[in-house]
This record gives sequence, C-alpha cells and structure tokens, in this order.
Amino acid sequence: MRGFKAAAVASGLKKVHGPDLALIVSERAATAAGVFTANKVKAAPVILSQKNIQSAKATAIIANAGNANACTGNPGLADAECTADLVGKALGISPDEILVASTGVIGQRLDMDKVKKAIPGLKAALTPEGIPVAAQAIMTTDSFPKISHFDSFSGDRPYRILGLAKGAGMIMPNMATMLCFILTDIQIAPEPLQKVLSASTEKTFNRISVDGDTSTNDMVLMLANGMAGNTALKEKDLARFQEGLTGVMEDLARMIVKDGEGATKRVDVVINNALSAKDALKAARTVANSSLVKTAFYGQDPNWGRIMAALGRAGVEMDETRVDIRINDVQIVSGGLGRGVEAEKRAAKIMTQPEFVLSIDLHQGSYRDHIITSDLTHEYININADYRT
Amino acid sequence: MRGFKAAAVASGLKKVHGPDLALIVSERAATAAGVFTANKVKAAPVILSQKNIQSAKATAIIANAGNANACTGNPGLADAECTADLVGKALGISPDEILVASTGVIGQRLDMDKVKKAIPGLKAALTPEGIPVAAQAIMTTDSFPKISHFDSFSGDRPYRILGLAKGAGMIMPNMATMLCFILTDIQIAPEPLQKVLSASTEKTFNRISVDGDTSTNDMVLMLANGMAGNTALKEKDLARFQEGLTGVMEDLARMIVKDGEGATKRVDVVINNALSAKDALKAARTVANSSLVKTAFYGQDPNWGRIMAALGRAGVEMDETRVDIRINDVQIVSGGLGRGVEAEKRAAKIMTQPEFVLSIDLHQGSYRDHIITSDLTHEYININADYRT
Repeated sequence: MRGFKAAAVASGLKKVHGPDLALIVSERAATAAGVFTANKVKAAPVILSQKNIQSAKATAIIANAGNANACTGNPGLADAECTADLVGKALGISPDEILVASTGVIGQRLDMDKVKKAIPGLKAALTPEGIPVAAQAIMTTDSFPKISHFDSFSGDRPYRILGLAKGAGMIMPNMATMLCFILTDIQIAPEPLQKVLSASTEKTFNRISVDGDTSTNDMVLMLANGMAGNTALKEKDLARFQEGLTGVMEDLARMIVKDGEGATKRVDVVINNALSAKDALKAARTVANSSLVKTAFYGQDPNWGRIMAALGRAGVEMDETRVDIRINDVQIVSGGLGRGVEAEKRAAKIMTQPEFVLSIDLHQGSYRDHIITSDLTHEYININADYRT
Repeated sequence: MRGFKAAAVASGLKKVHGPDLALIVSERAATAAGVFTANKVKAAPVILSQKNIQSAKATAIIANAGNANACTGNPGLADAECTADLVGKALGISPDEILVASTGVIGQRLDMDKVKKAIPGLKAALTPEGIPVAAQAIMTTDSFPKISHFDSFSGDRPYRILGLAKGAGMIMPNMATMLCFILTDIQIAPEPLQKVLSASTEKTFNRISVDGDTSTNDMVLMLANGMAGNTALKEKDLARFQEGLTGVMEDLARMIVKDGEGATKRVDVVINNALSAKDALKAARTVANSSLVKTAFYGQDPNWGRIMAALGRAGVEMDETRVDIRINDVQIVSGGLGRGVEAEKRAAKIMTQPEFVLSIDLHQGSYRDHIITSDLTHEYININADYRT
C-alpha cells in the first residue's frame, strides 16, 4: 500500500496476550473522512476522532483492543488525548493529525502506562507490510482478521483501496461494525471522500446485524494520501472508486457477520416490493433481528410462521394474503400460505449450508432492501454470558 | 367460581399426549371484553373472537394448544368457525356466543376430526372444579400452569376474579401473553368491563418481554356472568375491582416471565426520571430487549457498559454523565461512571438470585416506567432451535 506503514505490538491491554495496539501511518498528511456511531453514549476516542477529523486531514490512526475507553468521563477523554499526544511526539507530528480508536470492555480506564511503554516499539516496528498484524491487533471476540482490497486506475494512474475491520458483537443496524479503517493512495478532495464513504457505509455496514446492539465505539475511518499521483477524479473515475470502495466495505461487512459472535450461518434477508424504501428496510431489520427467526436459522428450520409473525409486528404496510417467502430458489410461502412439507424439506436442506438467502415479497410496491444477519446460537450465549468474567 | 364450569381433554392436537383442548362455560351469557394482538398477521381464532365479542356477550371459551391456526387463510377461518359451531351445538347455544383461542405451531391446518371427536367428552367433563386442568391444557412450552384469583365485595355481595394464562415464548411489549382468560361473577356493564380490562392489560401484559416477538394469537378474554348478584358497581367498588383485576393480571404476567422460554432470572427493568412517559417506556424496552444485557443477566455480570450502550441507542433524551444505575439497592453507576469493583461484586452477588431490580435514573424529567424481562439462556436456544422438529 503506497505511502502507508503499519505495526502492532502486545501492550498488555488485552487479557489474553497478543498484539493489541496498532498504529497506521501515512507518509504524508492524508485527506480524511469518517463515519461514527449513532449511539448517544460515545466513547472517548469517538469524541476525540470526531473532533480531529473536522480538518479533513489526518496522518495516523492508533487503535487498541481490550479496552473501549467508553463511559470513562473526562479522565477517559484525557487518556485518549494523551494517547494522541504520545503518538504525535513519537512521529513528530501534531496530535490533531492522529485519529484514535478503541474496542473492548466498557467502563474501565485505559492503562496509560502500558500505552506509553508500547509506543516506541510500535513506532520502531512500522513497516509497509504491517497491515495484517494491525488487523489482528484490533480483534476482540473476532475469530479471524478482516482485510479486503480493490485495485483500479484513475486516468492512467493505478491506485488501491485497502480496508481492515473488526466486528463480532454489538453489531447492529445503525453503524454496524466496531472498527474499520480504509486506506487509499488515491488523490481526492475531502468532500467527495466523505460523500462516498458515507454512501458506502449506508449500503454495507448499515445493512448488517448480529445482535441488534449498537456499540459506543463504532467508527469507519478513511485516509487518502494522494500518492497515486492522479489528478482530480473525473466523474467516471469517481463512480468506479465508489464502486470499489463499496465492494471492499461489503466484503468486510460480510466477514463481520460471518464472524458474528457464535454465528454458524450468514443469511441475507431480502425484502422485495415493499410500499416504501422505509418499509423495505424496516421489514428486513425486524425479521433479521427476531430472536425466534434467528434461532430457527440455527435449527435449520424453515419456520415461516415466525417470519410472518415478525413481518406482522414490523409496523409496515402488509397483507398476509399477499406474502411470498423463499429460501434461495425454494418457495415455502405463497400468498401467506405454506406450500407444504415437500417445499419445507427442500428449504431445510438449503438451510444446512452456511449461507443462504431468505427473500420475502410483500407485493405492496416496488421498494427493495436487505439486511445480512447471522443465526442465534449456544455459542453466542457462551461468549456473552462469560465475556467479562 | 360461581356459575362457571370448565374441562379439558386430550384431543391429540398436541404432539406430546396430554390435555390440549379446554372449554370454559358460563351458566348464563356473560358480559364479555377482550384485548387482542397488535400483530398485523392475525390468527383465525383472533379474527373470529374479535367478531364475536363485538356484541359484548359470550357464554363459552374454547381453546386449543398445539396448533395456532394462524397463516391458514380462509380454510383456517372456516375451521375456527366450525369449532364454534360444534361447541354451540353441543351446548345448545348460538356459535356467536363462543370465543375461540388457539396456540401452537403457525401455518398448519387444525385437525378438525380430532376437534370434532373430542367435543362430546369435553362437554361431559365440564365441572366447577375444571379450571386447573383447563390452565394445563392451554400450555405449550410452559413449564407450569398459571392461575391467580382475587376476592372482594361489591356492596355486601362477595365476588371473585379468576385468571388463567399461558405464555412462555413470543412474549413481547405489545400484547404480551399468548392467552389469558379471566372469569368473574361480578355484575358489570360492557363498557366499564372493557375499560378496566384494557387499562389493566396496558399496565401488566404490555409491560413484560421475553424475546421481543409478538404472537399472531395473543388474546385476553374476560367473562363477567353477574351471578354475584350485586347491583351496579359504585365508583369505589369499581376502583377496587380494577385494582383486583390488575393484581390478578400482574400475577399472571410475572408467572409468564418467570416461565419465559429458558429463563433463569426475572428482572424488573425500571426507568426513573425520564423526560417523557414515552421515553421512560422506550428506554425500559430497549434495555429489557437487548440480547447483550439479557445474556449478562444470565452470566450474573453487572455489565453496566452494555446497559449504557442500550440506553444510548434507545432514541430517548439522555446525557450519559447524568445516568445512575442500581441493582436492587447497590449503585453501580453514578453520573455515567462505574462505582468500582466492590460495588460490582455486591451487585453480582444480588444477580445470583432468581429475581432482582435493575433501576436506571436518567435525571431528565419525572417520568417512570418499567418492563419485566428474563435472561437469554442456552435453554432458550435449545427450545427454539428445536421447537418444530
């Protein structure tokens, strides 16, 4: 990745020993954009990064796992600022150019001694090949690191978009991932960068759900350092760039659901022919978040009664006698009525696969939307009943 | 219970052999009131009972478990009507005076042969002592029958309110229980009966949640046969009656949560000092329905970060620096900050008990509301991943 270096070290912030502090640095100040959690309870690093990104310029991202630095009040904000200061001093740049991200347990102070001690080693380890270890360092209950990239040209200049993310729990409709960092060497002005990032977030991370909870720490940060050397993006190139960015984010979003806490299935819940765009999204979210539907996914049971019941309470325009439901290409409900045991058997067989599509046709209008969700499993309970203890 | 008889038989509608068809009959036509599911997908018995109750008069309730007769279209509605016809003929009354209720699997036709065969035996078994077996017959995944009563006087005439209910799953904020039947011998006009029933439902069944799903079959039916022989209720007596009714329904609602699918804890989530009544209820529901909060209850972990995160996404007026959180009398959060390990240890000890109160003070206004909820457990997953298979 041209003009970016990264590194990670084990600072001791994570309970289980391993890399837990990551640093990503651009060779020169980059154009920066960000999307932040919609939760009213915002972690200290969210507050600080929102402030620092107002200049639309940033040079480095420092991220830790193990401690969210959320619900820590002014002392927590001071800790986030101190982290930026330490990184700024180490790199010889202003702390305003540092974006800070944290993920982990809420309500505990960051151990700043550990952060302080780790920073020289972190700086020394910076390398152009450091992204994979950085992606590993930001994991919490994730079971694998999440990286995706896209290559294209702007005019005759090649460029790359590279994204890394962590997810797993507290994944929900509004600002879905915990952390996602996207790096690109393209040259782009702040406004279009923020615009494409927001649009791609809406289409990708805001369309996944693991457990219906929104984190206090969610953020998507993007740095564009311009080292591809392209001139101003033309409309055609911008469209291509947008497409590539959405592709990278879609990849990461799907990885997050696949790696959802305890998940064994990834299900694309699609609503077709809703009366409005709002209805389409609302219906998809209600079905995708229903505990009963999600346990039926886990049980590999095409229990369409639960799907109908979820649609009926979604608060959308619907008439049960017009609803069709399919699992992949197998129709199990037609006009609100079950299509019988044979269809259900075929659907149940599809549901043994790790991925399938649940599509619902409301026959009310022409709007479509979808939510990618996971099943609700024993392992989810294991992870979340024991997470802190 | 003066003037009421009940019975139940094993008709074979339930997979596991046992009583599954219940009949409750008043000696004379009773004043009737009802509250029905808010789900747009309404089961056939809901549609029929809503129609039959319009006259505010009913003589009998027939209820089956094992099959919900929901999402069964016009044939399903015909089955519900046929059930009422059969009962009407057996009892020598008009089918319009029969209320029908069903609970069980959605999307399958009722086996009317079984119903037909069972009705003579059901009629023959009617007895004033039949309520407990009726309460047992309407159970599905319930682990115990739910009955509560209240005795009082109207003027110098004693009267009783007796309620029976079934719950377990698909229990959620709006019309929470699956089925509840309330019998009383008081003499009361239709309008005040419906008024007190609706008000008591709002305070009790609409304040509990097991899994955030609303059933297609929920109903609360009430029959008042007037055999207490009291004259028109005076205001003071009406207030007492309302209080007694709310008490009975509150009892049943708490039993439903206690018996929530897989539940090991019953938690009263109380919001204090919200800016509006709407905010108080919304915040209570969001916290009470959060999968992460509910698994923390199961894990006996005072994980207040998850509670803060749920409050932050509830869409209510809040300022994290003003939030106080208590488990029973132990304060774990003050002004949005944790009160330390000692407080959490004491809270964790309280959380080992089967019942406790989570109270949250928003310090925004003066409104209060609550939701009674359960924990999210391995057993919930067991029950719901395997329910149909």
